[in-house]
Amino acid sequence: MIAIATSADGAQIQDIAARAGVFNAEEVACVSLLWDEYLTQGPVVSGYQFVVEREGERVLGWACYGPRALTTGVFDLYWIAVAPEARRAGVGRRLLEASEAAACAAGGRMLVAETSGTPQYQATRQFYLGTGYAGEATIRDFYRPGDDLVIFIKRFQD
Amino acid sequence: MIAIATSADGAQIQDIAARAGVFNAEEVACVSLLWDEYLTQGPVVSGYQFVVEREGERVLGWACYGPRALTTGVFDLYWIAVAPEARRAGVGRRLLEASEAAACAAGGRMLVAETSGTPQYQATRQFYLGTGYAGEATIRDFYRPGDDLVIFIKRFQD
Repeated sequence: MIAIATSADGAQIQDIAARAGVFNAEEVACVSLLWDEYLTQGPVVSGYQFVVEREGERVLGWACYGPRALTTGVFDLYWIAVAPEARRAGVGRRLLEASEAAACAAGGRMLVAETSGTPQYQATRQFYLGTGYAGEATIRDFYRPGDDLVIFIKRFQD
Repeated sequence: MIAIATSADGAQIQDIAARAGVFNAEEVACVSLLWDEYLTQGPVVSGYQFVVEREGERVLGWACYGPRALTTGVFDLYWIAVAPEARRAGVGRRLLEASEAAACAAGGRMLVAETSGTPQYQATRQFYLGTGYAGEATIRDFYRPGDDLVIFIKRFQD
């Protein structure tokens, strides 16, 4: 079941980020920072909304999205991560659809997902392409030399 | 003279942002937020470095840049603004060069300047193109419908 994340989900969210296999230490630490801001300030002030898919008490995956400052109607998908043992069951797709629906309901015109161009992220890029996103831009060597930024966007109103 | 901005520059920085003629109320408010973080937390923790060009006590223009999280060597030029009465005297170019030099000295590989594709920002885009930047990507209707995001980049090491 997709639900708004609550404080009880924090440890499992962190754990899934660490076990996802594609995020480095700095990125996992960043999840912790965003989560703390979300918990202490709430989604409106922090700009971060966390959602989870739960099965009983167990978190299978989570996503974090929020509005892009200084735009009208752009939402960023900051993170989406599924526990390795819960993959290939549509968890990521449901989290993505829930994020899109919430962004759309909040007046969003598009959801932007930035990811890496490395082979390690091939499955991630295929995931976005398979769910209606277009790779609208690539910035060469962005994350580090040899690691491009690829900007995937789904537009809701075209 | 280009210098690191100090608290005494705050009022003039705000004033120049408001009088620049291209920033809306939300953007001017954002300058205030970034400035407060810079003053209270310092450039390293806040991630924002403000520089000014001064003539005596008078601030002619200012820029704000900082490292992009989760990248190695990407710096963002968040803002650059010159007082209307001080234009066409190379202030913007000197502020840009100082920002590039500082980013480069801090291990930066590129400086990224995001701007708008509207006619109002034509001079800004020409400024970047005339100072060695390339328009590497355009995201249609990003800021709002009809207002594209254009990503200009200068790479230091190519």
